[in-house]
Amino acid sequence: MNEQTPRRSGGRAARRASRAAPLTEDLRPIRAGLEGGTYKPLTDAQIQRIHDTALDALEQIGLADAPESGVAYLTEAGAIQGEDGRIRFPRALVEDMLAKANRSVTLCSRDGQNDMELSGTRVHYGTAGAAVHMVDVTGNEYRESLLQDLHDAARIVDVLDNVHFCQRPMVARDITDNMEMDLNTVYAASCGTTKHIGTSFTEPHHVPPALEMLYMIAGGEDKFRERPFMSNSNCFVVPPMKFATESCQVMEECIKGGMPVLLLSAGMAGATAPSTVAGAIVQATAECLAGLVYVNAVKAGHPAIFGTWPFGLDLRTGAMSIGSGEQALLTAGCAQMHQFYGVPGGAAAGASDSKMPDMQAGWEQMCSNVMAGLSGLNMVYEAAGMHASLLGFCHESLILADDIIGQALRCVRGIEVDDETLALDQIKEVCMGGPGHYLGTDQTLGRMQRDHVYPIFGDRTSPKEWAENGKPDLIEKAVARKEAILGERSAARFDPVLDAEIRAKFNIHLSA
Amino acid sequence: MNEQTPRRSGGRAARRASRAAPLTEDLRPIRAGLEGGTYKPLTDAQIQRIHDTALDALEQIGLADAPESGVAYLTEAGAIQGEDGRIRFPRALVEDMLAKANRSVTLCSRDGQNDMELSGTRVHYGTAGAAVHMVDVTGNEYRESLLQDLHDAARIVDVLDNVHFCQRPMVARDITDNMEMDLNTVYAASCGTTKHIGTSFTEPHHVPPALEMLYMIAGGEDKFRERPFMSNSNCFVVPPMKFATESCQVMEECIKGGMPVLLLSAGMAGATAPSTVAGAIVQATAECLAGLVYVNAVKAGHPAIFGTWPFGLDLRTGAMSIGSGEQALLTAGCAQMHQFYGVPGGAAAGASDSKMPDMQAGWEQMCSNVMAGLSGLNMVYEAAGMHASLLGFCHESLILADDIIGQALRCVRGIEVDDETLALDQIKEVCMGGPGHYLGTDQTLGRMQRDHVYPIFGDRTSPKEWAENGKPDLIEKAVARKEAILGERSAARFDPVLDAEIRAKFNIHLSA
Repeated sequence: MNEQTPRRSGGRAARRASRAAPLTEDLRPIRAGLEGGTYKPLTDAQIQRIHDTALDALEQIGLADAPESGVAYLTEAGAIQGEDGRIRFPRALVEDMLAKANRSVTLCSRDGQNDMELSGTRVHYGTAGAAVHMVDVTGNEYRESLLQDLHDAARIVDVLDNVHFCQRPMVARDITDNMEMDLNTVYAASCGTTKHIGTSFTEPHHVPPALEMLYMIAGGEDKFRERPFMSNSNCFVVPPMKFATESCQVMEECIKGGMPVLLLSAGMAGATAPSTVAGAIVQATAECLAGLVYVNAVKAGHPAIFGTWPFGLDLRTGAMSIGSGEQALLTAGCAQMHQFYGVPGGAAAGASDSKMPDMQAGWEQMCSNVMAGLSGLNMVYEAAGMHASLLGFCHESLILADDIIGQALRCVRGIEVDDETLALDQIKEVCMGGPGHYLGTDQTLGRMQRDHVYPIFGDRTSPKEWAENGKPDLIEKAVARKEAILGERSAARFDPVLDAEIRAKFNIHLSA
Repeated sequence: MNEQTPRRSGGRAARRASRAAPLTEDLRPIRAGLEGGTYKPLTDAQIQRIHDTALDALEQIGLADAPESGVAYLTEAGAIQGEDGRIRFPRALVEDMLAKANRSVTLCSRDGQNDMELSGTRVHYGTAGAAVHMVDVTGNEYRESLLQDLHDAARIVDVLDNVHFCQRPMVARDITDNMEMDLNTVYAASCGTTKHIGTSFTEPHHVPPALEMLYMIAGGEDKFRERPFMSNSNCFVVPPMKFATESCQVMEECIKGGMPVLLLSAGMAGATAPSTVAGAIVQATAECLAGLVYVNAVKAGHPAIFGTWPFGLDLRTGAMSIGSGEQALLTAGCAQMHQFYGVPGGAAAGASDSKMPDMQAGWEQMCSNVMAGLSGLNMVYEAAGMHASLLGFCHESLILADDIIGQALRCVRGIEVDDETLALDQIKEVCMGGPGHYLGTDQTLGRMQRDHVYPIFGDRTSPKEWAENGKPDLIEKAVARKEAILGERSAARFDPVLDAEIRAKFNIHLSA
């Protein structure tokens, strides 16, 4: 899988490249969908044991609190409701539903230029979360996150090469009505980027009006159903092993409306999931298998992402922790389970516990991001901009994530081994009668763009040059870039006629 | 390899733990020598091709510039000197010498408490390099590195749990005489830490007096030969494919004196090695195989480390670059070659191009450090404190590396899968009639120390707590820790009688 040439991913990036950078698309060293899988924290035998234990848990423990509709779908499919009310899943049912599940989901972009094909070990990175704060790097402060911040995040994602999708990373806390918040979230994300977007609905009856808006944006219901550019992140379980009743109803609405769903199980290892990495993966796997049965009982083959998102915990304090090595292992182990089942999967990586984009943030964001990529995780959620153990979102950090993820993707691309890269002939020429170095060889010059990821913000100057350049500060560079991006007219904005139509139907809080 | 219980590593860390932390040795979640190998950037077939190409290079191209003594050793062993003066190595010779090579090297500590057993995929992290600057984080400046800085670095390494050895990371630029610089480097490192130390001699005639000092410190030549606590980092090649004449003579002296040698091939991909990752690994492998033949021709079985250290280059500027994804791949690929040959190996990871310990430094240092560990590299050199593409060393960054490497080691330890960690019984108890959470279970409490690495400097507080704590700054915390460490009396200092004896024989520049 490391020997293939990276695939072409379409014209949008190419157009952008021709504007902003010297690279044509075929020269780009990295792109969305590179294949990972060289890192395997679990052996095949260990994967099998986790699978068997998850099936045991589904058969013996099952899940409580399914909504009435869910009980009907699930028991109709073959699940068994016990006297304790819990729904239990015979092994054969799980296996049957895995056979029916959609194994190759495409998450569409609004403009068709950044579609993500989720299968195998293809890797994509993006934002996600429900932060309630914005990080103000200039003031060294935290403040409430607003709808405008969410829109700005989408606009920034739109122009970053290595952030491939924009799932809502924060909550618009300036909108108190939940319905209006959900609808404005859809609006603010959709008109900020043409990349695939994700959202999360708080109540089932918010879904139909949101779908109405999405159908308008798509140019009709059929158009949206054909190419749904938004997916719904569904916290369908309250770990351990309970369905989230309302969220299940939301999920049913999304399935009916043609929206792909992320089956999100977000247990916290040591609180709502076992504290061990293996145990937390077992429980998340069991819960997501239950979700997969549910989705396919509602509609066989509906696009769903296996969202095992176990989170870490600082057991000394009971507080959430996202930046640890344990977290990186949780996520990478989950990626192997997705591959075992052959279903598209996602998990959380790349977030930090640090409050600011400092050195801690750097090491934490890279650790789980690169391990997630190497493990071949299809969807790396929360991969950019996330701080304070998911409580804070930072635009500058999002911008710097383009470098972090770029480097991680270079690692995912791996080592190509062929006659040209092994370079025996070149070594011979250089050493025997040649110049004694490789600086100007055709091979070096010919590959200097397509083999190497050059950082945008990372500084590689010598101490002398650095001093001569006025000792540039990484964060100040990101602030300047943010201002430049947000100062431009967004390429993703809606056509004015469409925008007016939406604003006529919905109470849009974002100024036109 | 992930299922084993981490091994006990001895009393020093235990004593320190009882002083400074609540963990007894058997509870420590991580330690030196954890086994990696879950990350394999190269397939078996690719490893074989790299091996075959390296053998072709040795047979067809060979190495120039061997010293007279080396020509004698090598041709006596079966190498062939061509009319062009190059020494070529028949395959059978390389294979014979690999069979004779020492496959399980122990790098000793001075006090016997921190020995490193290099074999298989056992991972150790430490300092190394030849920086000429110190990073002054408070003044945002670079200045020349001094002997005292080197001694202070050794003292800091001595108290960091996750930095396992102290190879000289910087050059004492306040000593102009090369002989005195080499001897003072040995002194300053040796009396700063009882962990294994590494140095590098500039000329062959510096080795005998240095050995005299080391024999004094060890309490006799026999004692040093039995447990050599210092190894020599030998840049025995000038890539591409030339022996470094003087350094080879240094190596011969070290071998005679009983000092383990690091066979260091430091090609720069795109300048002194092919620009491709695979090609740079081929050349480094060929060069180190030549070095291995050399060492074993001088003395069969002499402890040697296979030091394939290919470095990255920014091809746009021709400047060294160490923080890239390409660098992380170069190093991880080399680790697989060491494992293929079954010889102890080392390479460079964990250094940054950034001038200061900022977010860039964090993401760069983590990327290659964690990938090196996961790949099972025995000796991760330059893993702590290294900035400005190896030109600058930073004490504060060294201190923070304890967190970075700690987290990387947690990832190396991996995921244990057994009945207890799979936790089916626990899930059952918690979900069916139990409390519905895992916060207070015996299993959670029983494993909260031995499963989890808690950062020392990394901040996991909520934004509210963070503000209440006065928004602590990571770098300021590291500065304070540095001052505390250096303000204490060093546990590694020499006995006063020994110290006086050394000072009577050698011109020691460090004040007593």
